[in-house]
Amino acid sequence: MKPEKDTYRLLGVDPGTNILGYAIVEVKQKKLQLLDMGVIYLKKMEDHQDKLQHIFERLQSIIEIYQPREMAIEAPFYGKNPQSMLKLGRAQGVAIAAAITKGVRITEYSPKKIKQSVTGNGNAAKEQVAAMLSNILDFKIDDYYLDATDALATAVCHFYQSGSILSGKKRYNDWSSFLKDHPGRAK
Amino acid sequence: MKPEKDTYRLLGVDPGTNILGYAIVEVKQKKLQLLDMGVIYLKKMEDHQDKLQHIFERLQSIIEIYQPREMAIEAPFYGKNPQSMLKLGRAQGVAIAAAITKGVRITEYSPKKIKQSVTGNGNAAKEQVAAMLSNILDFKIDDYYLDATDALATAVCHFYQSGSILSGKKRYNDWSSFLKDHPGRAK
Repeated sequence: MKPEKDTYRLLGVDPGTNILGYAIVEVKQKKLQLLDMGVIYLKKMEDHQDKLQHIFERLQSIIEIYQPREMAIEAPFYGKNPQSMLKLGRAQGVAIAAAITKGVRITEYSPKKIKQSVTGNGNAAKEQVAAMLSNILDFKIDDYYLDATDALATAVCHFYQSGSILSGKKRYNDWSSFLKDHPGRAK
Repeated sequence: MKPEKDTYRLLGVDPGTNILGYAIVEVKQKKLQLLDMGVIYLKKMEDHQDKLQHIFERLQSIIEIYQPREMAIEAPFYGKNPQSMLKLGRAQGVAIAAAITKGVRITEYSPKKIKQSVTGNGNAAKEQVAAMLSNILDFKIDDYYLDATDALATAVCHFYQSGSILSGKKRYNDWSSFLKDHPGRAK
């Protein structure tokens, strides 16, 4: 499923140790289209190494299928529990390694930056982010998708942040500056 | 540089964010031989992703060259600083991913377990561990190697812990039980 000419794809990933969300968006002449969005459940896998292997292999296969140009990863840098942070770091590490093996460039964004970029508010609730995404990308939110919307938000954030680099066209730093050029998108 | 018949190799890795130590030992009829030991310096690489990529690629190439049957990794699970633990987790994650891509089985050991297994004392100093290793494997320690001896200790620990599984022969849980069968090795 190669991208068409003048089209490229972005992979957004929100790696966690229990749930990993991912989303693929396609960019065609400034327009964003949602191609795939999903959740990989890891909670039932007891062995931590099996989890890491599963993350690695699933992400590799998603990259093989959609051939995204870049990957954006939600990467919290702060946390209180050192052991949780170690596990999270490992999940991030294998996700990054999966992209490295496929030659996909990686950009990291903090959760706050992603929320800021997508909704204009760095402290927006998950539901607000999801509502904004469903507006931008024209899909219906259900509970299943709420686990994947952080990944989608990461991909959309990367589109706004690096639009000019990726497409050689105008760059949007956040949703509000994008809105100014696309007033019809606001409901 | 394929292993000879009736011979297998173990890779020991001590992944850190500034220094990564590695060691390759060969096992031939219960005897351990040191084949390679080294240190990858990461401190000068400012970009954290470059570090991760470097760890991943260097470990892949070491695995390609020596074709170890298994990898043992020193994996501290405890730490005080969440941010340091996240970075450490990432380094561990890409090291694990490098082994996964090459089909090498991974076993993790805590620093305490490694020291216990090699010296009989879980709180042994780095120098004591190095002295014991130089005795077992007949090499001279210098300052350069002190950064790699943790990796070597990890490989040796794995040999003691899983000797029976790996070779189908007697298993040694630590250096002291090995010593009993090989009294000539003690100086």
